[in-house]
Amino acid sequence: MSKLPFEQIKISTNGGRSGILNTRGGKVRTPFFLPVATRGAVKGLEPTRVAATGAQVLLSNTYHLHLQPGEKIIKKLGGLHAFSAWTGPILTDSGGFQVFSLAKVRKITEEGVYFKNFASGAEIFISPEKSMQIQLDLGADIIMAFDDLTGLDAASISRVPEAVERTHRWLERCVAEFTKRTKNLKEDQKPLLFGIVQGGLAKKLRTKSLEFVQSQPVAGVAIGGLAVGETRPEMYAMLKYLAPRYDPAKIRYLMGVGEPVDMRLAIEHGIDMFDCVLPTRNGRHGNVWVTGDKKLNLGSAAFAKDSGPIDKKCDCNTCKSGYSRAFLRHLFKSADPLAGSLASIHNLRYLARLCESYREGKL
Amino acid sequence: MSKLPFEQIKISTNGGRSGILNTRGGKVRTPFFLPVATRGAVKGLEPTRVAATGAQVLLSNTYHLHLQPGEKIIKKLGGLHAFSAWTGPILTDSGGFQVFSLAKVRKITEEGVYFKNFASGAEIFISPEKSMQIQLDLGADIIMAFDDLTGLDAASISRVPEAVERTHRWLERCVAEFTKRTKNLKEDQKPLLFGIVQGGLAKKLRTKSLEFVQSQPVAGVAIGGLAVGETRPEMYAMLKYLAPRYDPAKIRYLMGVGEPVDMRLAIEHGIDMFDCVLPTRNGRHGNVWVTGDKKLNLGSAAFAKDSGPIDKKCDCNTCKSGYSRAFLRHLFKSADPLAGSLASIHNLRYLARLCESYREGKL
Repeated sequence: MSKLPFEQIKISTNGGRSGILNTRGGKVRTPFFLPVATRGAVKGLEPTRVAATGAQVLLSNTYHLHLQPGEKIIKKLGGLHAFSAWTGPILTDSGGFQVFSLAKVRKITEEGVYFKNFASGAEIFISPEKSMQIQLDLGADIIMAFDDLTGLDAASISRVPEAVERTHRWLERCVAEFTKRTKNLKEDQKPLLFGIVQGGLAKKLRTKSLEFVQSQPVAGVAIGGLAVGETRPEMYAMLKYLAPRYDPAKIRYLMGVGEPVDMRLAIEHGIDMFDCVLPTRNGRHGNVWVTGDKKLNLGSAAFAKDSGPIDKKCDCNTCKSGYSRAFLRHLFKSADPLAGSLASIHNLRYLARLCESYREGKL
Repeated sequence: MSKLPFEQIKISTNGGRSGILNTRGGKVRTPFFLPVATRGAVKGLEPTRVAATGAQVLLSNTYHLHLQPGEKIIKKLGGLHAFSAWTGPILTDSGGFQVFSLAKVRKITEEGVYFKNFASGAEIFISPEKSMQIQLDLGADIIMAFDDLTGLDAASISRVPEAVERTHRWLERCVAEFTKRTKNLKEDQKPLLFGIVQGGLAKKLRTKSLEFVQSQPVAGVAIGGLAVGETRPEMYAMLKYLAPRYDPAKIRYLMGVGEPVDMRLAIEHGIDMFDCVLPTRNGRHGNVWVTGDKKLNLGSAAFAKDSGPIDKKCDCNTCKSGYSRAFLRHLFKSADPLAGSLASIHNLRYLARLCESYREGKL
């Protein structure tokens, strides 16, 4: 790369930092939050509305886009940016999360993972190589390695060590495939490849995994396998444990975390980026965050006559456009999809502002 | 009124015309189409998005807003404009359409109509006086008289003459109640009251009804009881029959019509305004109009690889923002509510442009 993928600008005493991620799709200020656009769009929101919340990068889903409409169609139509009308950078997850979330309908082998498509009955196979091909066809700016993510429940936890080893072997295969497929691209036109650290709640495994991933030619280090059912103290202990062990040259991405309180602790311990369905999924159910990381449900009868905005201190489009809590409650009662869209905008802005507060000097 | 409610600017040989409707909420260029915001919002669309389609006036529903959240709450919150964040004029229907559409759960008496609220089991009573009170509490700029609308099926048609007579008696009660309740308002702060012409497909009854309504102190004449199941030739015959019989000083409103082909014929025969759920309801189901009044369904597999906009000649936000037919089809397949919102925007713009073409010289 002509530029380093990650330029650190400021670092706090406890390891929190701000900086710039250089992607082929544009510069990204860190720390930042990625809204989830599973199938290319953030549900119910035009991309211009998402961008207006301060979002810089979207996350889309390899598995779902592979199934519908298929990466070949998206490639033919000019890639995911042209297809979805999102002009900023895009990160695609690898399909690895589906290894975990679709546990009942998949079979893991060393070669890759076989999924059963409920809708069509067809068998889908995703391997490290296949995942690279799909993500490159989609045209993502940030590509995630295909990993073997396992849960922390009693039935799964014994599989953690094996999953770590497989994740490492798969990362080597991802690097090889990615390198081969991008070798003819100019340096500044190559997407970034991120590796994923696994290891559950076992410190030794996490150290081993972090060291392995950081030894690979990847621009970013993702922390996978957290926010999958462990307690908050368990997650915090691991984030604190990992904080002094990161390579400063690589960006760090905590996958699947989107509760403000968790993001604050993570940022203060060296995490640069996050994704989560919470702001939009919660929003669609009327759950919003307000100043102080408090939660409200807009469907509540308590708001029936409340003429104020969701949060007087918020500068999101929903709070600034004159929509009262009473009107939003009415829209939720009316099952109008506008309700979820307006609440999603508010929640996305809430997380974007949280990140901005760290970029602008809270560190 | 200091100004005449309706100022005729141009009139064509066959009776089509353009002009200006002066409401307390602002001037409206005619002919125009009212998007339907049943519960205060056009489903899935922010009011700024609706306004950007060229829509000037919204239609909201007295019956539904009376049930939820109730006109008293809306009044307390500053009226329907403040509540819904729509800054243009608002027309409220009277509840009369529900006399027709909720035929199975209502009982008509001379005093008014009793409805059964399925959700709560409660009995709701709407009379001409009650309808005026609700619409004035809501803060509508255009208020519709409460009418007795009946269907044209075999079971209902014998009731047409009786319904016309009752509609006339109820109009007198509406005028009296409206006059009493608005007597302390300055002339330019009074809403406009429109009467409704009934009479089914019977020319004599229609003539009688039109003459009666036009004799009343109303600003507008609405044609009700069409687009309720009759054939297209039957509707057209009635519109042509009525065309030479209108009072030029009153605006004419064809209720419930929103098919482009029907709007064209109606405009060319003297109709000034329309409302209909079609553009938004159709849009939510993927049905869109394109140049030539043709219809497409965006869910069709034929569009899976179509990189073009819905309509190359359209200037709506959806067509101008880079959303391809392929992407829209994908959003419909994904059940993303954004799909319906984007298609609704397109359809609303289609009808607004149709009206603009008549304002700008097609007459």
